Amino acid sequence: MSLTNALPVDAAKAAKSASHTLATLPTSARNDALTAIHVALSQSKEEILAANARDLTAATKAAEDGKLSLSIVSRLDLGKKGKWEDMLKGILDVRELEDPVTLRTRLDEGLDLERVSCPIGVLLIIFEARPEVIANIASLAIKSGNAAILKGGKESTESFVAISRVISAALEATVVPNTAIQLVTTRDVIPQLLALDQYIDLVIPRGSNELVRYIKSSTKIPVLGHADGICSIYLEHTADPEMAVRVIVDSKTSYPAACNSVETLLVETASLETLLPPVAEALLAKGVSLRCDASSKKALTAKLSLHSSVILQDADESDFDTEHLSLTLAIKTVSTVTEAISHINIHGSHHTDAIITSSSPLAEQFMSSVDSAGVFWNTSTRMADGMRFGFGTEVGISTNKIHARGPVGLEGLMIYKYKIRGGGQITAEYGEGSGQRSFKHEKLLF
Amino acid sequence: MSLTNALPVDAAKAAKSASHTLATLPTSARNDALTAIHVALSQSKEEILAANARDLTAATKAAEDGKLSLSIVSRLDLGKKGKWEDMLKGILDVRELEDPVTLRTRLDEGLDLERVSCPIGVLLIIFEARPEVIANIASLAIKSGNAAILKGGKESTESFVAISRVISAALEATVVPNTAIQLVTTRDVIPQLLALDQYIDLVIPRGSNELVRYIKSSTKIPVLGHADGICSIYLEHTADPEMAVRVIVDSKTSYPAACNSVETLLVETASLETLLPPVAEALLAKGVSLRCDASSKKALTAKLSLHSSVILQDADESDFDTEHLSLTLAIKTVSTVTEAISHINIHGSHHTDAIITSSSPLAEQFMSSVDSAGVFWNTSTRMADGMRFGFGTEVGISTNKIHARGPVGLEGLMIYKYKIRGGGQITAEYGEGSGQRSFKHEKLLF
Repeated sequence: MSLTNALPVDAAKAAKSASHTLATLPTSARNDALTAIHVALSQSKEEILAANARDLTAATKAAEDGKLSLSIVSRLDLGKKGKWEDMLKGILDVRELEDPVTLRTRLDEGLDLERVSCPIGVLLIIFEARPEVIANIASLAIKSGNAAILKGGKESTESFVAISRVISAALEATVVPNTAIQLVTTRDVIPQLLALDQYIDLVIPRGSNELVRYIKSSTKIPVLGHADGICSIYLEHTADPEMAVRVIVDSKTSYPAACNSVETLLVETASLETLLPPVAEALLAKGVSLRCDASSKKALTAKLSLHSSVILQDADESDFDTEHLSLTLAIKTVSTVTEAISHINIHGSHHTDAIITSSSPLAEQFMSSVDSAGVFWNTSTRMADGMRFGFGTEVGISTNKIHARGPVGLEGLMIYKYKIRGGGQITAEYGEGSGQRSFKHEKLLF
Repeated sequence: MSLTNALPVDAAKAAKSASHTLATLPTSARNDALTAIHVALSQSKEEILAANARDLTAATKAAEDGKLSLSIVSRLDLGKKGKWEDMLKGILDVRELEDPVTLRTRLDEGLDLERVSCPIGVLLIIFEARPEVIANIASLAIKSGNAAILKGGKESTESFVAISRVISAALEATVVPNTAIQLVTTRDVIPQLLALDQYIDLVIPRGSNELVRYIKSSTKIPVLGHADGICSIYLEHTADPEMAVRVIVDSKTSYPAACNSVETLLVETASLETLLPPVAEALLAKGVSLRCDASSKKALTAKLSLHSSVILQDADESDFDTEHLSLTLAIKTVSTVTEAISHINIHGSHHTDAIITSSSPLAEQFMSSVDSAGVFWNTSTRMADGMRFGFGTEVGISTNKIHARGPVGLEGLMIYKYKIRGGGQITAEYGEGSGQRSFKHEKLLF
């Protein structure tokens, strides 16, 4: 990894060249580099967390001055319970991943087709806060044989520089080229990088929806990611009440700044007086602001004590199209699963949506018909995560309809090529005519 | 299928709505629709070929007047040997394909993750000639559960209209919505269609590189395809002479207008006087114009009879960056496999490249290092084809580095979603802390 002040075009050229080297390194060499990074980061915990604390102090002040959102401050904190450990564990998990499966077909005797996975080439990762992203991405890029250019947000500069120095020193002792992972710290280079489609093969933005929208509209390079995370939960009347409380509270409060947190609760009319009150009480006890439509407000006001009811807010239409990223939840009443599905397909962001019900047919209908990357039954929307899915770590969560959808791990950073090993076969000898050969198309095992 | 003069936005909206219906139809219903199309097309062969003959007459005249390239005329001909049969066989092959494999992981006891493939949504297919594309695409779209909007070139209007009428009538008797496949025949609608990124999920252009380049630079919708097909063959000195002749002649002459035909022959210096002369003689006998660099021209002039040598042409630099799409082949001398790889990675179009050699290590080096969708050893570049690969048929050949690369069949029209079936599990109960659970990440069989 190198910290570069090079011109974007030179950084991109160097990355392209490094990607060719990286693509031909054996798995063992790439795994050794990951081990080296893990050891080095473990040994430098104190120094990196100190740098992160400096970022956090500055960001907290900026937030107090109204110049930065609290959700960014929250994402910035590398000392947050479990975050450092998850980051380190992610590197080892990635190291253990196997190369994605390929396809093999015998086209004819002595004519074998093989599909082998290979790296995409050069990735451009643009991120705002979340310092752990740098370790996640560096390990996934090295494991998959891609070169990467990382451009971090100014809020987390100290953390990034500290982490990248450690990774850079660790890579020195390996065969991975130093230019394979480059951290660009110069300002205002994003437009220049986005124009380099001859060198950069994929852009992965991680940050606010403004950032992602800007990037998507400013480049011809394919962009992998999501702008919004407007996730919904549909609370059906046969749901187990205790389960409903657990799952909804976890989905809303375990990390409100995350894109997989729930933003809208769709309550079946038949659940308004039975399931909604205990759910609302648990949420209010956790400090969640509830923005209710008329029916849910009426039901809650009747059921809850006056003390609680005074803090119920009225939802307006825009609340159902908003990613609050904070302890705010919009509540809407729907009469059927069909209405819930339709609401989610129109107002959601095709990220992750869940149903809580004890009816298997309703759950299956919901999961088939909701057009989202994640469709969950009786579990938290926050399960949508590469680490929880077993991908080691993730480069982000995609709401794209092509290439990779949902949490993107190693597989999303790979493409494939087709190899054929033949013995002089030509196309003119195959066909339907007399004396012509037919393809066998026999699947071969790996 | 409907032939529509509707506004592009209305066609796109109708397609989106049909895609939701199509996505929930069972496999049997989609297969029945393919059977109906196959029967109907078989019965209407005469009528469709007559329409195609009218297109062909007009195009031939336009070509004579210099208004249309001969390669377009060649692609237009549905009566060309085997083309009609291949088109019909493609429909049945697609019907027999199985839904792409999914992933299943037990995250924890009673918490199962499943990745299921699902259609992308709405495809926009823009094509110039090649009337068979309409049957290929319609069958792949229906099989995969995508809706499709087809916009054909004016050269093949008669053929398209004839084919789409037959398919439309066949679909009437099935449960596939009529708006699932729409043929847009109004002119000048392409810019409007390319702006509809809220309804259209993927654009697949099939036509000249000018068309593809225009489309890629005019839309935010992902584009799948290739602009150029500059394919090369590297002739190494240990190649079997008879095999070299067979493979190179097939790669150049079996269908010169195809994107997978060879355009550049890279001859190892050590092959100049041994292998090149018989190859060149065979090509010249088939009417191929050879554009030679100085070394290859010198070698050929010395070896071949004067009669042949007078028709050797001099190559200029642009010949190695040109897709001739005709009986023209550029010949360049290189000293090593490394020089051949480097030439291909710089001048090729990352489509399909082949090596002819009897050395397995050289072949493996070539296939690993050439950054192309197809890398072949001892077989024709024209093997790069969805039907030959066993995909039934193809929507095109992609040189993209994401989603789908090489011949794109059913799998390239699918994406996936993640389903989780749980029992109330929440993220807060998992972690490294005491009393917390760990994910099992146990792979399940299908």
